[in-house]
Amino acid sequence: MDLKGLKFSKMHGLGNDYIVIDESEGEVVAEDEKPEFCQNVCRSGFSIGSDGVIFVTPSSSKEADIRFRIFNDDGTEPEMCGNGIRCFSKFVYDNKIIEKEILKVETLAGLKTVEITSKNGIATFFKVDMGLSTFKTAEIPIKTEEKEFLNNELFVDGENISMTTVSVGNPHAVVLTDSVDSIDLNRFGPAIETHEAFPEKINAHFVEIISKNEIIMLTWERGVGYTHACGTGATSSVLAGYKLSELDNNVLVHLPGGELEIEVYEKDGELGAFMKGDAELVFTGEMV
Amino acid sequence: MDLKGLKFSKMHGLGNDYIVIDESEGEVVAEDEKPEFCQNVCRSGFSIGSDGVIFVTPSSSKEADIRFRIFNDDGTEPEMCGNGIRCFSKFVYDNKIIEKEILKVETLAGLKTVEITSKNGIATFFKVDMGLSTFKTAEIPIKTEEKEFLNNELFVDGENISMTTVSVGNPHAVVLTDSVDSIDLNRFGPAIETHEAFPEKINAHFVEIISKNEIIMLTWERGVGYTHACGTGATSSVLAGYKLSELDNNVLVHLPGGELEIEVYEKDGELGAFMKGDAELVFTGEMV
Repeated sequence: MDLKGLKFSKMHGLGNDYIVIDESEGEVVAEDEKPEFCQNVCRSGFSIGSDGVIFVTPSSSKEADIRFRIFNDDGTEPEMCGNGIRCFSKFVYDNKIIEKEILKVETLAGLKTVEITSKNGIATFFKVDMGLSTFKTAEIPIKTEEKEFLNNELFVDGENISMTTVSVGNPHAVVLTDSVDSIDLNRFGPAIETHEAFPEKINAHFVEIISKNEIIMLTWERGVGYTHACGTGATSSVLAGYKLSELDNNVLVHLPGGELEIEVYEKDGELGAFMKGDAELVFTGEMV
Repeated sequence: MDLKGLKFSKMHGLGNDYIVIDESEGEVVAEDEKPEFCQNVCRSGFSIGSDGVIFVTPSSSKEADIRFRIFNDDGTEPEMCGNGIRCFSKFVYDNKIIEKEILKVETLAGLKTVEITSKNGIATFFKVDMGLSTFKTAEIPIKTEEKEFLNNELFVDGENISMTTVSVGNPHAVVLTDSVDSIDLNRFGPAIETHEAFPEKINAHFVEIISKNEIIMLTWERGVGYTHACGTGATSSVLAGYKLSELDNNVLVHLPGGELEIEVYEKDGELGAFMKGDAELVFTGEMV
């Protein structure tokens, strides 16, 4: 396909970077060409290079203001992305596509609400309702007789490791540790990810608790490996710590790529969370 | 430093990509800030992301039309770069900074001549005089009693490997092999690079000869590791093959990132080479 003249923005959230394309006034990349297009433009060295592509698209839902679509660099379309939706919201606000501080966003994981803080017309901070979670083992899923897996032990690569599993739309295993520096992430990350107890594999996080309101987290992402930031992982880590009474409901999470704040709430007997953080516009570009 | 408003082009040669900044009409990035600037903008995820930055700079030399400067993503300034100088030449020609088909370029490795082929005012193909080489072992350098190291054996990680060493400004070890697919690059690449025989380390190339005019090459670059293209490596591999009478003086080199043609010439009893290949402009950008 001919990319000449294509305009885009390059943004990032905690170092996860995205090419953002405005389709709010009409399709820019044909639907059936989107997967191949994303594979092409995400390829570093030969093209723009990024972790994925975000399309800003009109929503046909009455409840939503706008629709969020995101594609990975392999051309697949995931349901949601915490770092991506902050970039998306900044793009929508700064470019006055929707002039609202409370943005209702249609995603493949349902309607998401984003609360925008701005300064001089530029969005600087984002509070995203990540929705409700579940600790039910059948829904993670994890093969166990326990109904919830809360600091229970799993035999991983020759060692018993205590972990808590939670789903926020995708599955997470959270391991509390005295020091993230002592963790052999390349050994235990993949060993947990592909453990036979997790038929759909799992994201693994190692969490060091500094105080009831502050943690350090290292992530091994399912299908990806080490990543310097994982929004759903930060959310899951705080939810797990809160459930275990190790954390308060407002926690600052230090990730290798930066910081996120997670705020836990209770609704209908379940735990939900807000994710709060920033997003950056790096440059605007035009293909030639 | 404030990058807002900075204009740049993103180009690549065989997948080695560069941010190109036009300083032909004045300094854009202050001299003492260039190393830090390059570290910043080359960082993928958080900024533009690239292998390096090229500055198009006026030359104070009477013989040169223009000056080529290139910085690596670690902020260091290497003498020369085969893939980089093709990108540089395309930028200079397409933007009509110098309107000549024969470009005399000042580099830290001396004056380089680039012959440009164009179509409708756009440069499409580049013939770069890479200059003279040397096979003298004292100049590579390699610790040996041989004056030249031509298909001589070196004991590497438990095996005797025949190789030829040559310098084209930087040092290269060329290993002829029946099949590049059978090479364990991650084992023998670093073992040759850091072999005690090479006090300044060395670039290692594994070359499969298809015919007297066509080879396949895999590179382990000194200080970098696997790279999908190495212009000085392709040049050195053909020079070594020509010296050993295994290749003619015109050879097509297949690299993982694309193709280069190398043409060997003789001058004053030494072997020199032209490197011929293309370069691509991917997009133009502006920092925000």
